[in-house]
Amino acid sequence: MKQVTLAARPTGFPDESHFAVVECDVPTPGPGEVLVRVEWASVDPYQRGRMSEARSYAKPVQIGEVMTAQAAGEVVESNDQRFAPGDKVVGQLGWQEYAVARGGTLRQVPDGIPLQWSLHVLGTNGLTAHFGLFDVGEPKPGDTVVVSAAAGAVGQIVGQLATIAGCRAVGIAGGPEKAREVVDAFGFAAGVDYKADDFHDALKRACPDGVDVYFDNVGGAVSSAVLSRLNVGARIAVCGQISMYNDPQPKPTFAPGLLIVYRAKMEGFLVSDYAARFDEAIPRLARWLAEGKIHHTEDVVEGIEQAPAALLRVLRGENRGKQLVRCG
Amino acid sequence: MKQVTLAARPTGFPDESHFAVVECDVPTPGPGEVLVRVEWASVDPYQRGRMSEARSYAKPVQIGEVMTAQAAGEVVESNDQRFAPGDKVVGQLGWQEYAVARGGTLRQVPDGIPLQWSLHVLGTNGLTAHFGLFDVGEPKPGDTVVVSAAAGAVGQIVGQLATIAGCRAVGIAGGPEKAREVVDAFGFAAGVDYKADDFHDALKRACPDGVDVYFDNVGGAVSSAVLSRLNVGARIAVCGQISMYNDPQPKPTFAPGLLIVYRAKMEGFLVSDYAARFDEAIPRLARWLAEGKIHHTEDVVEGIEQAPAALLRVLRGENRGKQLVRCG
Repeated sequence: MKQVTLAARPTGFPDESHFAVVECDVPTPGPGEVLVRVEWASVDPYQRGRMSEARSYAKPVQIGEVMTAQAAGEVVESNDQRFAPGDKVVGQLGWQEYAVARGGTLRQVPDGIPLQWSLHVLGTNGLTAHFGLFDVGEPKPGDTVVVSAAAGAVGQIVGQLATIAGCRAVGIAGGPEKAREVVDAFGFAAGVDYKADDFHDALKRACPDGVDVYFDNVGGAVSSAVLSRLNVGARIAVCGQISMYNDPQPKPTFAPGLLIVYRAKMEGFLVSDYAARFDEAIPRLARWLAEGKIHHTEDVVEGIEQAPAALLRVLRGENRGKQLVRCG
Repeated sequence: MKQVTLAARPTGFPDESHFAVVECDVPTPGPGEVLVRVEWASVDPYQRGRMSEARSYAKPVQIGEVMTAQAAGEVVESNDQRFAPGDKVVGQLGWQEYAVARGGTLRQVPDGIPLQWSLHVLGTNGLTAHFGLFDVGEPKPGDTVVVSAAAGAVGQIVGQLATIAGCRAVGIAGGPEKAREVVDAFGFAAGVDYKADDFHDALKRACPDGVDVYFDNVGGAVSSAVLSRLNVGARIAVCGQISMYNDPQPKPTFAPGLLIVYRAKMEGFLVSDYAARFDEAIPRLARWLAEGKIHHTEDVVEGIEQAPAALLRVLRGENRGKQLVRCG
């Protein structure tokens, strides 16, 4: 079997030399453990954070350790009575072709949905969009909801949830194709290309009534442009700051006095803090999917050894929709 | 009568040349208006903002206009049946010895309390502390509540309200005297001098369990130090950013990614948004005052022509407690 480990800590933008693809034996599950053959591995911006030693909400991956990742696959062998060979499961299994995990860390994926959806629209990305928008952003019908990285795995769902909630969804994405895609594929009211020369004017035109909710995945200059258009009482849900992830030190980009002017709230969140409520959100997301109210896109590479290149694509904004790795 | 007007817009730190002291006739109240002889005028950091044309939550004072200010005094003549000569009132009367105002903009000050308290502990400063701490900061018993400008008119009350709420209040102030004062006079658990060489270490020692609530009056480097000590779930109530008020452009000082790491909330507020609930807070503050649970200090200058110098003192942090001007 193959696995992808962290070979070195990057300073600045990583490259493939910071990873190693190593071959090893398929592990044997101990008491209470389950052996899973990974079919799909997830690629997400937060993984850049785990490559660094900077203080964060989770421990860094150690040099030589398998890269942390969500993955989904089939149970091969089980020493936990809740799982049997053939079951489909999802968990933090890492970038590797086989993984052993404690049964309690795995979630069963029901039949009838494509397994990889458990990694995005019916998994972490969908849950992130749901709790970040509804619980942190607190949208009210008629609000203008702006989403950065709107064509990405989380952003595309946020916009659709905002539309379902009776809001005007405005998506910011990199390049004219993605800006069109958020409108054509995901039903945003407007898409704005942050790489265009007229970004600020286009954003202004797209938000004629100002910004009530900002779901921020990127930070930096894009966010500064949005924050200059806030309405009184605006809510800013800080989900990610991908534009900062390759800076050795996060640059100050924000003057908090703005929050006084607009009596606005800026709040960071982690989807894992909502774990006790996942079962409340997943059926709702599944229903909207079944009703055709949520669409999504996948960007798939083949082979776990392609995972590092896929992460670099995500960090450069080159992926189109949810970045996945299909294994074996 | 004398009044103080805005003579010129400062860029950077203002000086007395930006104000003019002018003499004029005492005005005559029209229908529905009340003539008030001002006894006490308030001096507050927000007035620096009104001297600039930068977009904010309130209109700037125009050149030649009387400086906006809260003031309290005695009704001399009234064309509003709710007020009679001899009544004590408070309102946005400006830096002037006599003012005419619509009756509906005035609040009656009850007998039995010193009139000037209606400008601070039983007025805007006390209400700012009350709603900013209790509604925005949401303190829970056992929380560590850090307050910047802790010896100031708002900060000294915030710390005492935090103590009443069962929290550990930590006050940050400029210089060793003020750092001691917040402990000795206002009962904070600890006082920290931000001008001291060991500020960061002293702050760390004063907050052995981290920071749950930060009531921010100052912004800038002081706030950066506090924000590096947040606990998960921390709340930051942004009341003022006095360290920025003399910058032509507010400097970015904050990287919002920190809010993700700590799942923290940063929220700006204006006391005027809570106007409908002032009558809920004032009797509570009055009771705590009567019970000796709230102490306060006043820094008084004599004569309305001293108001500009008093504001400059406040902007330099040289005042000790609530800055007031006594008139006539």
